[in-house]
Amino acid sequence: MLILGFESSAKAASVALTSDGEVISQYFQKSGLTHSKTLLPMAEDLLKNAGLSLSDVDAFACAKGPGSFTGIRIGVSTVKGLCWGTGKNAVGVSTLEAMALSVPPAKDRIICGAMDARRNQVYNALFELSGDGSLVRLCEDRAISLEDLAAELKEMARPVYVIGDGAGLCCSFLEKEGIDAIMPPEEFRLQTAVGVCKAAEKHKAESAADLLPAYHRLSQAERERQEKLNSK
Amino acid sequence: MLILGFESSAKAASVALTSDGEVISQYFQKSGLTHSKTLLPMAEDLLKNAGLSLSDVDAFACAKGPGSFTGIRIGVSTVKGLCWGTGKNAVGVSTLEAMALSVPPAKDRIICGAMDARRNQVYNALFELSGDGSLVRLCEDRAISLEDLAAELKEMARPVYVIGDGAGLCCSFLEKEGIDAIMPPEEFRLQTAVGVCKAAEKHKAESAADLLPAYHRLSQAERERQEKLNSK
Repeated sequence: MLILGFESSAKAASVALTSDGEVISQYFQKSGLTHSKTLLPMAEDLLKNAGLSLSDVDAFACAKGPGSFTGIRIGVSTVKGLCWGTGKNAVGVSTLEAMALSVPPAKDRIICGAMDARRNQVYNALFELSGDGSLVRLCEDRAISLEDLAAELKEMARPVYVIGDGAGLCCSFLEKEGIDAIMPPEEFRLQTAVGVCKAAEKHKAESAADLLPAYHRLSQAERERQEKLNSK
Repeated sequence: MLILGFESSAKAASVALTSDGEVISQYFQKSGLTHSKTLLPMAEDLLKNAGLSLSDVDAFACAKGPGSFTGIRIGVSTVKGLCWGTGKNAVGVSTLEAMALSVPPAKDRIICGAMDARRNQVYNALFELSGDGSLVRLCEDRAISLEDLAAELKEMARPVYVIGDGAGLCCSFLEKEGIDAIMPPEEFRLQTAVGVCKAAEKHKAESAADLLPAYHRLSQAERERQEKLNSK
């Protein structure tokens, strides 16, 4: 199955093409330009250079969240548009699951995804590798404070492997709390579209109409409105 | 310094753009199409999508060998052409050094690059990480038999981390010889243009006229001619 995957949940944007799990092409960019400007040209170039066209693709995949609200909207909208235009199905995957599948694996450690969610929180999920090397999810995606995450990991009493753009902050905090935490070097720490394609292989493609962002938190505007209503 | 790097020494082709060591873009392709068809379009797309042009690039870099003779010629020729056209300088780096800088680092192990060189040999070099995480070369690039490599590594009596497209073969052989050898998963094992850019940061750019392939072995035609002359 040929999957074209998009990752735009943070500062970098990437697109990848996999065939039955094998990487044919991948394209990563962290140039500071907006994803709405770079994502589709990257996909177009990638298909053209591999001698393929949109009609060859079996399913379009994207990271549907958590992450930057704008970034996620761009990824989800791009995939919805491509599915509508081609009549193909979509797979929306967890940004954190894609992240765990993007980085070099860590045996015998809990894999702790950490994206900076501001307001003293990280978007987080915990995973581990099973005996056969496949990824096992230990909790749902969530926004959590570093204090609560550290308390939970202390309870689990296992060494931790921290990944994601919030890994630096998170790993230092966990170490201070006496937890055995390490992280890979920066260039092997971030979610990529290859991870999105790998995650998509494990999930069922669905109608693009059912693909929705998973923010895991209210937007700033929604939060402020709620606070205003509550204070009345 | 903005470096545009090319890697075409094996089956995959990749191009990367780094600014003072930070990755701006990378583009990887293993589609089965010839490098002579894919390499320059990849570079053109990569610059265009990052809002840059050839004139912004400070130096062009490539893996100059060892590796596939044809692949190396394509990489070296591409960089020579770009330098000639733009008046910029070139950096040719060892494929094996670029490889060691492309993969997740392995502390406390000898890093053993292994590219399938056919005729029961691998192209190989040995490295290790110094205390500050920088790469230290332990021997020159060479073509060596697995038997001779195993004998040398036994002598060194240290655990080994095998990388490159010949890692599978090499790692099994070393294990059979009783050496503690591991390798990263396939997608974190190969040389990439990001590694070429990282290696290029450490070397001086030179006139493109001085950039030459480093095959580390005679070509088949040269070898057969030599054998014919010797037998006379």
